[in-house]
Amino acid sequence: MAREINVGIVGTRFMGRAHSHAFIDVAHFFDLPLVPVRRAACGRDVAQLEAFAQQFGWQTTETSWERLVARDDIELVDICTSNASHMPIAVAAARAGKHILCEKPIAMNAEEARRMLDAAREAGVSHMVAFNYRRVPALVLARELIEQGKLGRIVHFDAVYYQDWLVDPSFPMVWRHDIREAGSGAHGDMHAHLVDLARFLVGEIAAVSGVQEVFIRERPRADGQGMGTVTADDATYFLARFEGGAIGSFLATRLATGRKNYLRLEIFGSEGSLVFNLERLNELEFYSRRDPGPEQGFRTILATDSAHPYVKAWWPAGHIIGWEHTFVHEVRDLLVAIAHREPVHADFYDGLRCQQVLDAVCVSASEGRWVDVPAGD
Amino acid sequence: MAREINVGIVGTRFMGRAHSHAFIDVAHFFDLPLVPVRRAACGRDVAQLEAFAQQFGWQTTETSWERLVARDDIELVDICTSNASHMPIAVAAARAGKHILCEKPIAMNAEEARRMLDAAREAGVSHMVAFNYRRVPALVLARELIEQGKLGRIVHFDAVYYQDWLVDPSFPMVWRHDIREAGSGAHGDMHAHLVDLARFLVGEIAAVSGVQEVFIRERPRADGQGMGTVTADDATYFLARFEGGAIGSFLATRLATGRKNYLRLEIFGSEGSLVFNLERLNELEFYSRRDPGPEQGFRTILATDSAHPYVKAWWPAGHIIGWEHTFVHEVRDLLVAIAHREPVHADFYDGLRCQQVLDAVCVSASEGRWVDVPAGD
Amino acid sequence: MAREINVGIVGTRFMGRAHSHAFIDVAHFFDLPLVPVRRAACGRDVAQLEAFAQQFGWQTTETSWERLVARDDIELVDICTSNASHMPIAVAAARAGKHILCEKPIAMNAEEARRMLDAAREAGVSHMVAFNYRRVPALVLARELIEQGKLGRIVHFDAVYYQDWLVDPSFPMVWRHDIREAGSGAHGDMHAHLVDLARFLVGEIAAVSGVQEVFIRERPRADGQGMGTVTADDATYFLARFEGGAIGSFLATRLATGRKNYLRLEIFGSEGSLVFNLERLNELEFYSRRDPGPEQGFRTILATDSAHPYVKAWWPAGHIIGWEHTFVHEVRDLLVAIAHREPVHADFYDGLRCQQVLDAVCVSASEGRWVDVPAGD
Amino acid sequence: MAREINVGIVGTRFMGRAHSHAFIDVAHFFDLPLVPVRRAACGRDVAQLEAFAQQFGWQTTETSWERLVARDDIELVDICTSNASHMPIAVAAARAGKHILCEKPIAMNAEEARRMLDAAREAGVSHMVAFNYRRVPALVLARELIEQGKLGRIVHFDAVYYQDWLVDPSFPMVWRHDIREAGSGAHGDMHAHLVDLARFLVGEIAAVSGVQEVFIRERPRADGQGMGTVTADDATYFLARFEGGAIGSFLATRLATGRKNYLRLEIFGSEGSLVFNLERLNELEFYSRRDPGPEQGFRTILATDSAHPYVKAWWPAGHIIGWEHTFVHEVRDLLVAIAHREPVHADFYDGLRCQQVLDAVCVSASEGRWVDVPAGD
Repeated sequence: MAREINVGIVGTRFMGRAHSHAFIDVAHFFDLPLVPVRRAACGRDVAQLEAFAQQFGWQTTETSWERLVARDDIELVDICTSNASHMPIAVAAARAGKHILCEKPIAMNAEEARRMLDAAREAGVSHMVAFNYRRVPALVLARELIEQGKLGRIVHFDAVYYQDWLVDPSFPMVWRHDIREAGSGAHGDMHAHLVDLARFLVGEIAAVSGVQEVFIRERPRADGQGMGTVTADDATYFLARFEGGAIGSFLATRLATGRKNYLRLEIFGSEGSLVFNLERLNELEFYSRRDPGPEQGFRTILATDSAHPYVKAWWPAGHIIGWEHTFVHEVRDLLVAIAHREPVHADFYDGLRCQQVLDAVCVSASEGRWVDVPAGD
Repeated sequence: MAREINVGIVGTRFMGRAHSHAFIDVAHFFDLPLVPVRRAACGRDVAQLEAFAQQFGWQTTETSWERLVARDDIELVDICTSNASHMPIAVAAARAGKHILCEKPIAMNAEEARRMLDAAREAGVSHMVAFNYRRVPALVLARELIEQGKLGRIVHFDAVYYQDWLVDPSFPMVWRHDIREAGSGAHGDMHAHLVDLARFLVGEIAAVSGVQEVFIRERPRADGQGMGTVTADDATYFLARFEGGAIGSFLATRLATGRKNYLRLEIFGSEGSLVFNLERLNELEFYSRRDPGPEQGFRTILATDSAHPYVKAWWPAGHIIGWEHTFVHEVRDLLVAIAHREPVHADFYDGLRCQQVLDAVCVSASEGRWVDVPAGD
Repeated sequence: MAREINVGIVGTRFMGRAHSHAFIDVAHFFDLPLVPVRRAACGRDVAQLEAFAQQFGWQTTETSWERLVARDDIELVDICTSNASHMPIAVAAARAGKHILCEKPIAMNAEEARRMLDAAREAGVSHMVAFNYRRVPALVLARELIEQGKLGRIVHFDAVYYQDWLVDPSFPMVWRHDIREAGSGAHGDMHAHLVDLARFLVGEIAAVSGVQEVFIRERPRADGQGMGTVTADDATYFLARFEGGAIGSFLATRLATGRKNYLRLEIFGSEGSLVFNLERLNELEFYSRRDPGPEQGFRTILATDSAHPYVKAWWPAGHIIGWEHTFVHEVRDLLVAIAHREPVHADFYDGLRCQQVLDAVCVSASEGRWVDVPAGD
Repeated sequence: MAREINVGIVGTRFMGRAHSHAFIDVAHFFDLPLVPVRRAACGRDVAQLEAFAQQFGWQTTETSWERLVARDDIELVDICTSNASHMPIAVAAARAGKHILCEKPIAMNAEEARRMLDAAREAGVSHMVAFNYRRVPALVLARELIEQGKLGRIVHFDAVYYQDWLVDPSFPMVWRHDIREAGSGAHGDMHAHLVDLARFLVGEIAAVSGVQEVFIRERPRADGQGMGTVTADDATYFLARFEGGAIGSFLATRLATGRKNYLRLEIFGSEGSLVFNLERLNELEFYSRRDPGPEQGFRTILATDSAHPYVKAWWPAGHIIGWEHTFVHEVRDLLVAIAHREPVHADFYDGLRCQQVLDAVCVSASEGRWVDVPAGD
């Protein structure tokens, strides 16, 4: 009989819902050494908190994260709040000896990320940043192909993350528009994913040169009280040099009309290439120069076979999975790591490294020049 | 507070798993008038049954469907067994006053389906056939567009269901290869979906002309005891005339190398057209002759906006759902129908009509001529 | 210095234009043993004939095909007229000792086709039916892959030819709507291509079962004198059994709203599969079960490399060719065959075999049963 | 009867072939006020020159461009040589009163381009830079949609030009690898097209920030004499700010394994978006926020209808054209402009403006900072 682990979640909105689903489904589809118990949910809005807890079966509630973190019965703290509160919650949780799952981007800046990493290491707890796209089966396959040398030497990593939910000027201000709450806009939210995937698939980024823009500078306040000033970027674009020699491009925008959640990677190597698009997340396109000449072409691999990562737990080939499944896989790997006292990626060090790149882009954009990313530990 | 309804499931394999998932997730994502309780699971293999019940949280078990159906605490019987047992279980469940959800195809032939329909109507219970593709958001959108007249008069319905899991001659015999257990092969399993979608989207089929083939006539027995004779069709193709005047084609095969679960619809009308592919089930392609001339083209609608059917319950636009979600939607609609004593489609009448078409194809294939489908009630 | 060959063309409309282009371009891009001279053009409408001859550089004109065929200076007769006149022109040309290129379908029926074949064989002239899609580089590649055994045993050949130019009921009557001029409608025009490609790629068809329909039975006469009655089919669908055991489907319609010239092939074998679409004629999709398991997928081969058939004569890889190039390739092969007194496909025998299948489909459609195709010579 | 114009072409390789084809076909498919005569071809390699002239029907030859330019019978000089000779030939041609068609990029740098523009203006001759992608029907349609306001305010122009012909390290040195002959590598060859299309579709570029890289620094010399040093960039990436406020990205590389001639544009505006890919040049993807909500999607317009630009001259809808047709359209527009003494784009001013952007990118890449593009005239 598997042991149980009590989870406390902080944050009851989009990510709170996605993580709750993962904790619900994971034990039904994966054989776990540690079964999660949805022990406590924490939020500031009592009515919403109660509704959330009931909807997703969280046994108890707290309206203060300090109290949640302090509770003896909580063993894993899952941080799904807005970015500004990641650091204090994570540091407190670490000091209280809790394992930590933290939404991305890890923090408001690299300094905060460093404090989180130090606290987690000092406490000896498991720590994970919720870069859930590392658990898309097609992207795990991409990494395997790269590790097997099927791309040869990688020369380009070109990534876009296109969304369009801000294209309507009447879309109201939310916390994500306020740089004090969000740290940044499209950049922190979307480039965090792209930078993490770049590191996951290709390696460390050495230098960056970027540009940031707010196209719609005023939006109606959600409370109906006139207009608010948007301070978070609608779009950030940057170029990058990788330590391994590759050159890359990173484009993130929330004004890409018609694209909803279009995260596309194009990776070119001396022996082969890969293309991926999150709106078709079950598919990976792969080109190999080692195929016979006249037969070469980008092949669309439907990464739903039992031979593909994570997939055996679900359905037969061709029965596609959805976006939410990536969280189930993530939680599964975290629980295994906690049970076996093993490292798990992406950890807070990955979060820190990602944040250092994001920070360097902001400096670059404000100074109009290339900026080096600090060397890793 | 929502009332509860006790569910008893019969069958613990592929469909048992998919339905279990649906009963688990539905209450977390939809506001229900009737909350399902996973009360009892039934299977013949005790070890597998116990494992299944534990994995998916079924509270009790039975090894005889007769006992399950007879239990006072069961209100809804979910039939996920092989096709040969659908009729006896459903008839017994109806007579015991249970609501019924039954996997497709409804039965071994139209006569059985008729008995099931009669029993359910006589008992006054809710009855549903698990044609889950009626709950793909993109296909519900397809039906809405058709109902709004956006396709005009429909002239063609061309459907394929391509899979390739039987292309390897060493793939062993399973119950699906035995016509006594399965009723038919690709035809019953895959054409049941296509015929149901044809009826859902376009209307009744008047006449059919088909051909059936077993390409690999012997397969290794699963028990290792030599070869078994395949009696169920590897592929069935048929043409159809619809009552409304359209002409259609239906191709189902399990030897379409490279296609895993490729159910494609192409529907052409005098004003517009639709294309759908289950391997990209979040997308619907729509062409409208009413668009300005030089701008006409097939548009790929990513049916993941909150305006699209069922989607609001899940995630923001562009965060795609998977195959399994269709069962959640199906169960949601069934529970609402039971609670409000309303009809729900696809019901046993739909199952019967579908079966009549399937039966007519078999007659046509064996006699080499067109065969009329019986008129509806 | 290459010898010259004098060409006489009959027919000045769509196909006359396409063939003229081919005769113009072929010597600029291919090294030919026999250079075509555009010697004489023939048409009934003098004004149009003169304009055509001037536009495409035909040196002389004739208003009677009998005179053209009789001219001593004409060595190759190119028949681009409506279907009803193919047979008399071809037979006369053969008797006059001319080589013949004839548009498809070869004739009004198999009896006519047989007379043409007999006449050409007796005269010992070169004879070709203009099944130009045999000269799409991607389809020549398809045939090469099949001949190399890369598909294994072929089990399915599923073809559609979708156009939509008749979907508008106000589109006027043309000769293609009149069964006396055209022999048939969508069937002869479009299925001729599909059946020829089936034979080119997979082999002979043994039996067929089809259905034909006129959806729009009256159209405005082109002369403005009221409505005319459409006698040629808007759509014909049929199923087929191949001599080699495969089962296939053939769908041709001119009412497929949104599809302009959408000829799609899907060919499934025990080892691999191919997909082709004429609207993207530079591409061939190929799936191989011999690829490593997790890397299998349909690869899109851009058949524009110098290693691909015919392509070296044109542009570097990725610089796509158009529909018209297929005629250039066809004419090139015909000229080589004439120069070297070698056979060339598709010849009149291929035209006859194709016509026998088309005829069998018409019988099948009118009698509602499967019909065998006559055995080949 | 249309007047004739005598053309002299300089350069007998790739572009010489493509332009020759255009001069051959244009009069057969377009009604011209001025019919081109292939009067003289010029090249340095006599054997190749003679073969070229014979293959494409050039009436006479010259081995010195100075002599060609000086000939009284030449009215239009077509410059298809390597980049370093564009300026001297064009200036001499202008001074000799010849109209000029010049391949792209216009010159080695903006200063040369300015001299060419000045000379052409002073001479009062027609001048055109062969940015042939302005004559892709789908891209002309793109411009029309933008001019009609269907994209609203454009916020992003993201362009890539991916090729892979240099990925093999054994591919030998050609003039394009030598910065003295080519001016630059991928940048000048490929970004010239992207920058011109950006100006054609969106407007002037205000500032740029780029990076350039030679990945394979030594290649075998074509003469077999050891290795040569590559000085021209394999890849150049840059970001841009447009005068109109948009932010853009431009990626050009010859090491994008699997991409042959993959020029992709993604243009996002406040009301709609466009996507284009040169490997499928008959297609334009268009998204409109003005479509009814649940029906919005990227529609694939097959730009082959008679309503689409240039297409009426060719074939019926769905019969796709090839890459070479863009040159036919270009030559057609030039001949019309010369005949009617009207301006024609892209002219040498467009060539200059493009070159100014290319030059600014090179400065930016070498200095690691953003660089402003000079203001236009």
